[in-house]
Amino acid sequence: MATVGKVIKCQAAVAWEPNVPMVIEEIEVAPPQANEIRIKVIATGVCHTDLYHLFEGKNKEGFPAVLGHEGAGVVESVGAWGNRVIKSFPLFLSQCRECRFCKCPKTNLCDQSWSSDRYAQMSDTTTRFSCRGQPILQFMGTSTFSEYTVLNQVAVAKIHDDAPLERVCLLGCGISTGYGAAINTAKVEPGSVCAVFGLGAVGLAAVMGCKNAGASRIIAVDINEQKFEKAKIFGATDFVNPKSHKKPISEVLAEMTNGGVDFSMECVGNGAVMRSALESCVKGWGVSVLVGWTDVQDFSARPIQLISGKTWKGSLFGGFKSKDSVPKLVLDYMAGRIMLDEFVTHTMSLDQVNDAVQLMKTGGCIRTIINLSK
Amino acid sequence: MATVGKVIKCQAAVAWEPNVPMVIEEIEVAPPQANEIRIKVIATGVCHTDLYHLFEGKNKEGFPAVLGHEGAGVVESVGAWGNRVIKSFPLFLSQCRECRFCKCPKTNLCDQSWSSDRYAQMSDTTTRFSCRGQPILQFMGTSTFSEYTVLNQVAVAKIHDDAPLERVCLLGCGISTGYGAAINTAKVEPGSVCAVFGLGAVGLAAVMGCKNAGASRIIAVDINEQKFEKAKIFGATDFVNPKSHKKPISEVLAEMTNGGVDFSMECVGNGAVMRSALESCVKGWGVSVLVGWTDVQDFSARPIQLISGKTWKGSLFGGFKSKDSVPKLVLDYMAGRIMLDEFVTHTMSLDQVNDAVQLMKTGGCIRTIINLSK
Repeated sequence: MATVGKVIKCQAAVAWEPNVPMVIEEIEVAPPQANEIRIKVIATGVCHTDLYHLFEGKNKEGFPAVLGHEGAGVVESVGAWGNRVIKSFPLFLSQCRECRFCKCPKTNLCDQSWSSDRYAQMSDTTTRFSCRGQPILQFMGTSTFSEYTVLNQVAVAKIHDDAPLERVCLLGCGISTGYGAAINTAKVEPGSVCAVFGLGAVGLAAVMGCKNAGASRIIAVDINEQKFEKAKIFGATDFVNPKSHKKPISEVLAEMTNGGVDFSMECVGNGAVMRSALESCVKGWGVSVLVGWTDVQDFSARPIQLISGKTWKGSLFGGFKSKDSVPKLVLDYMAGRIMLDEFVTHTMSLDQVNDAVQLMKTGGCIRTIINLSK
Repeated sequence: MATVGKVIKCQAAVAWEPNVPMVIEEIEVAPPQANEIRIKVIATGVCHTDLYHLFEGKNKEGFPAVLGHEGAGVVESVGAWGNRVIKSFPLFLSQCRECRFCKCPKTNLCDQSWSSDRYAQMSDTTTRFSCRGQPILQFMGTSTFSEYTVLNQVAVAKIHDDAPLERVCLLGCGISTGYGAAINTAKVEPGSVCAVFGLGAVGLAAVMGCKNAGASRIIAVDINEQKFEKAKIFGATDFVNPKSHKKPISEVLAEMTNGGVDFSMECVGNGAVMRSALESCVKGWGVSVLVGWTDVQDFSARPIQLISGKTWKGSLFGGFKSKDSVPKLVLDYMAGRIMLDEFVTHTMSLDQVNDAVQLMKTGGCIRTIINLSK
């Protein structure tokens, strides 16, 4: 390709500073170095973690940066792979296959990942981005709000040639996170009773995971009742708006389920909801999973909640080992075993990225796809 | 027996009100009703839960009562069993074998137990005790600080005829709780690295559980270094006094263990220690178990602690199904597979029960046995 080994100039959404909308800029993307791959991004989802970093998180470092971590594209330059268009998938959680975590079947937390031991921080690896002579940081090792990005080889998966990138990109974060939380982390069992708190994309994916795992009853909990119709599509059987009840939601669910649910998933990222989700579990064997994210609040409960035999767990990226699992999830979608189309409520261009963030802030979307394939 | 069907007058330690020492009184113990068994208590341990209810808990109801829940004795009156001395074991956690919890292999929380759905409360079942014309409540369904007590048949186990009651009584709470937390709840694995926070009887039993499960390294953590020698007897390999370090104990343990321990057990009952125990676990697969009890504090942590793949669990009575397990644990002791003698630091008579409580308050004992076999 004509661009191999050269700096590429392209459009990207640059987040210059926190709490301020991103700006579409022409940036320079340096060629990939050893163990890196440069990718032309075709499509990217806009995930709450992007919004969180820009507007909500406690960490105000790590700017300026290019956000975005739910993308899919094609390889631009790794000469050894030839000129064939290779569909490739940026992974915010890497899989080096060599560290003790990759070698352990219990976890997906590769020790080579950008986030290793610095969960609350911006990636401080050397960046390949610059703009107006200034280095621009990469976010979560991915930075998919750019026409081109450079990835470490441990953070990219090859996916099926026929995969529709404007759909499977959603597997880069939210959908895998919610779906995996149900099937890998909670390990929802056939015939079980589940509750999912929060019906954004992550929560809806958790509902889908509960259904695919054979749950007999899936209680969808949200204070926005407009989400219930969507939740039904993914498999929810019961719908509860906590604001419609005077008693605590855990008591409401206990009455509905003879003592509490077998599995609950918190997909909001709020300490009080995390507590409610645990309290809503049945004693003895109830499992509650933290899926939503916050680093500005603790979660808490009374010790009896665990002493009574409940388990509190959590996972990143749904517990999926990324390189191994994303290509399989892509095939699952292509074979109709998991839904993706149903999450997409809006499609926009890169220069509308701030509109997409705004839509998410107001709960006006499930997922917006940014299409960069011009 | 001459007493069958009759009220028995005997000595008991009556806790008339919270925050006041118990009083040795003559009480009346009514005959057992349907599904009940009257037992002559031979020996009882003094457990922190007795102290907790009397002096520390938030619940000031449930008085007057006879405390004590770590006892062993012989059947006094169940005519159908004949006159043979049957060694019997009061179980604060029952096993009815009929409820959905007893039928589930995942839990030991019998739904017929005194504590079912009222963990924070005193038993309000009809009592068989009275003193000076006043009903005296039974504690945890057991009340072993009495020469005689009456138990529901779901809350008593038959143990081996040769079992030394002044030792195996310890299996009634603390030792089983700590030991089971390691082997049943944490499911400590061979070769793993463990940390036990708090080296009272429960913590020492957890150390013993880690050792019997094959842990390669067992880090004993306590602010009282005098306990380290004892911990070594039970299998501890490393000893840490948090007061000897300026940095958080979780950082100290992370440095000692290349990132954190595989399993941690909190055997104190303190919210801050619970947090430290979780934070001391390695990401990816670390499991922390709440073993200590408090109902006046929350436990809490940052969500990343679970999102990074750790699990927070807890159990009551070490996860042992009581009727099934206590007779086996007695045999384990008799065969030398578990230690009990090493926990006993003091032996006293019933009229010294307040001294035993005081000793426990000041950390001056591991376990005191109250001998009632006069």
